[in-house]
Amino acid sequence: MKRLAILGSTGSIGRQTLEVVRALPEHFRVLGLGAGKNIDLLAEQVKEFRPEFVSCAASGDDKETKNRLIAAGCKFLSPEEMACHPDADIVVVATSGTAGLGAVLAAVQNNKTIALSNKESLVAAGEIIIAAAEKSGARILPVDSEHSAIWQCLNGEKQAARRIILTASGGPFKDYSKAQMAGITVAQALKHPSWQMGKKVTVDSATLMNKGLEVIEARWLFNMPVDNITVLIHPRSIVHSMVEFVDGSVKAQLSCPDMRLPIQYALSYPDRLANPTLPAIDWSNFTDLTFERPDTDRFPCLRLAIEVGREGGTCPAVLCAADEAAVDLFLSGRTGFIDIARLVERVLEQHRKVTHPSLEEIMAADAWARELVLELVREDGK
Amino acid sequence: MKRLAILGSTGSIGRQTLEVVRALPEHFRVLGLGAGKNIDLLAEQVKEFRPEFVSCAASGDDKETKNRLIAAGCKFLSPEEMACHPDADIVVVATSGTAGLGAVLAAVQNNKTIALSNKESLVAAGEIIIAAAEKSGARILPVDSEHSAIWQCLNGEKQAARRIILTASGGPFKDYSKAQMAGITVAQALKHPSWQMGKKVTVDSATLMNKGLEVIEARWLFNMPVDNITVLIHPRSIVHSMVEFVDGSVKAQLSCPDMRLPIQYALSYPDRLANPTLPAIDWSNFTDLTFERPDTDRFPCLRLAIEVGREGGTCPAVLCAADEAAVDLFLSGRTGFIDIARLVERVLEQHRKVTHPSLEEIMAADAWARELVLELVREDGK
Repeated sequence: MKRLAILGSTGSIGRQTLEVVRALPEHFRVLGLGAGKNIDLLAEQVKEFRPEFVSCAASGDDKETKNRLIAAGCKFLSPEEMACHPDADIVVVATSGTAGLGAVLAAVQNNKTIALSNKESLVAAGEIIIAAAEKSGARILPVDSEHSAIWQCLNGEKQAARRIILTASGGPFKDYSKAQMAGITVAQALKHPSWQMGKKVTVDSATLMNKGLEVIEARWLFNMPVDNITVLIHPRSIVHSMVEFVDGSVKAQLSCPDMRLPIQYALSYPDRLANPTLPAIDWSNFTDLTFERPDTDRFPCLRLAIEVGREGGTCPAVLCAADEAAVDLFLSGRTGFIDIARLVERVLEQHRKVTHPSLEEIMAADAWARELVLELVREDGK
Repeated sequence: MKRLAILGSTGSIGRQTLEVVRALPEHFRVLGLGAGKNIDLLAEQVKEFRPEFVSCAASGDDKETKNRLIAAGCKFLSPEEMACHPDADIVVVATSGTAGLGAVLAAVQNNKTIALSNKESLVAAGEIIIAAAEKSGARILPVDSEHSAIWQCLNGEKQAARRIILTASGGPFKDYSKAQMAGITVAQALKHPSWQMGKKVTVDSATLMNKGLEVIEARWLFNMPVDNITVLIHPRSIVHSMVEFVDGSVKAQLSCPDMRLPIQYALSYPDRLANPTLPAIDWSNFTDLTFERPDTDRFPCLRLAIEVGREGGTCPAVLCAADEAAVDLFLSGRTGFIDIARLVERVLEQHRKVTHPSLEEIMAADAWARELVLELVREDGK
C-alpha cells in the first residue's frame, strides 16, 4: 500500500491519478490532495478519498471553503509542506506551469520519490533539480507518456542509451499550410486528435512547443545531449517513444493513448499491476504505424525549444514562461495561434542569458519574460 | 573476456557469430569450433581463431582432415563434450535440426550458459530441456531474432508478460494465391526478402513453418501458453517481436534485420557492446511499419505448428522431423513446395501421441516421422 500526496488533483493528470487509485484501492491510498482554485471538485475528491491533508490556493482567503474542508477532517498544508511530508511514499506533481517548481524542489531536497507530470519545472530549472536529486537521493519518476516510455525501455539496461527517439502526434494542425495556420481558433487548438489533456498542454501540443519542452525534459531526466534526441511525428500516438542502444538495438513502448497507464506505471514501479479499466491494444486490428520528420518551418516552437535546450542557462526558463504567457493570451482571445511562436522568439531575442543560474535568477528571468510578452502584445495592439 | 564453444560454426549463424568475435576481440575468445561436413571452412576458421578444441562430423573417417586440424594444434572432442566443457563461458548451439539435441541436453545438464539458435531442439524436447535447465541452473539465452527481441523486452521486468506478439516477415510468398503457390521453385523459396539465413530455415520462413516452430520455442523459453502468443506479419522485419504486460503496456524491440545483433546480445548479456560493424536504423528515413494477420489457409504449416504446440507430447517432435524431411525432399527436387505442409499434416494424422515423453520416445517419434515422410513420397511417386 503506497500513500500518495497529489498536487494538482483537480487537473487532468490529477483526476486520472485518482481514477487509478479508485481502480486499485488495495495498492494506493490518498494521503494528501492539493489543488488550485477548483474548490468544488477538491471538496468532492476529499469526500471520496478522505485524505489527511489538503492544500489549495484559495484556502487563505476563502473562509467558507476552508470550513468545508476542515469539516471533512483535513489538515491544511502548503504545497511545499505536502510535497515533502514524511508519510508520503510518492509525491505526484501534476500541476501545470512553473508554479509547480517550489513543490518539486521541496520534494527533491527532502529525498522524496516524485511522480513528475509537471514538465515546466524540469525545463526551467533542470540543472538545479537534478543536482538536488543527486545530492539527496530523491527519485524523479516520469509521468509524461513519452518519458515514461523511455524509462520503461531503459528498465533493466546496464548501459545508457545512445539516442532517444521522442514521438509526437503532430497535433491537430500537422498538415496545415502556413496560410491555414494564421486562422486557427481556440476551439480548433483545443481539439487534440489522440490525447485528452489540460488546456495549456493541448495548445502546446498543437504548436509542437510541448514536444520541444519534452526534448529538454528528456535531456535532464535521462542525461541525454539534445543532439542525440530525435523527434518523429507519429500521428496515431501508439508508439510513445523509443530508445536506441550502443549495439544498434532499439526498444519502443506502445499502448493505447491513455495517460492512466504512465501514471499507474510511475505509482506501481518497479511492479506492474493488472488494471482491467486500462485499455489494451487490439492486435486483430493492428495495421500500420507511420512516422515522419517534423517541419520546424511550420512549427517554429519546436525549433526554438531545441535551440534553447542546447543553449541552457536561463534560456529554457524564458522559453517556458514566455510560452505560458503567450498561450494564456491566445486562450483568452488576445493573440493569434501563430503569435505564440513569434512572441516566444521575440522574448528570447531580447534575453541576456545567465549560465548556471540560481533559482532566484531563474525566477527573475521567468517574471521578466512574462512581463515582456504582455508588453509586446500591448504594443502590437496599438 | 568470454570463452565461446561454437557448435555449427560453418553454418550461417556460426559464421555470423565469428564475425561478432572478429569485431570484438577484446571481449570474446573462441575456445572450440564444431562443424558438420564443411571441413574446408572449418580449417580456415581454425587457422584464424585458433581454438583449443574442434569437433566435426567427418573427423572419424577422414584422416587427412583430422591431420590438418591436429597440425593446427586442436584437440578433438565430440559435440557433446564441447557443449559441456568446463572452460566454455558460453556454448553457442548454431546447428540446424534436431541433430543438435544431444549437445543442447549435455550443456543444459551441465549447468552451462547456452546461446541457442537451434530451435528444433526446444520444439522437439522443450519439456525435457526446460526441466533439466531448472534442475541444473543452466541458462538458455535465445539467439533467434524474435526470441531475442522478447527477451530484451522482458529485461528488468518483475512481472511476467501476459501476451507475446511474434512478428514474421511473411516470407517471399506472402501475397501469392494458392494457385501461384503450386508452382514455387526451390530458387524462389531460397530468396528471402529480408533475412540472410541457412537453407532449411529459409524454406521454413517461406512456408511460415518457421514462425510456427518459433511459437513453440517461445512457449518454452518464456513459459507462455500458445494461446497467448499472437503472430503478426510485418514484412519489413524491423520490429522483431513485442511483449504485452499486465497493465496493457507493450514493449517492442526494433533493429535492422541482421542476425549479428541478437547473436552479440546473447554473448554480451547483461551488457550491450558498441560494435561499429552493426547497422543502425536510419531515423531520417523511418516512415512506416505495417502489420497484418497471417493467413493460415494459404500457410497451413503455421496452423499445424500452433495446433501441435497446444497438443504437446511427442507431436511437436513429429512436426519438426516431418518438416525437416519434407524440406530436404523439396530442396532436392523430389517434392513440391505445397507438399511440405501436406506431408507434415499426413504424418501428424497418423501419429499416436505420447504425453510427457522420454528422450527415447521423442527420438523414436522423430525417426518414425522421417521414415513415414519418405514412404509417403515414394507412394505418391508410384
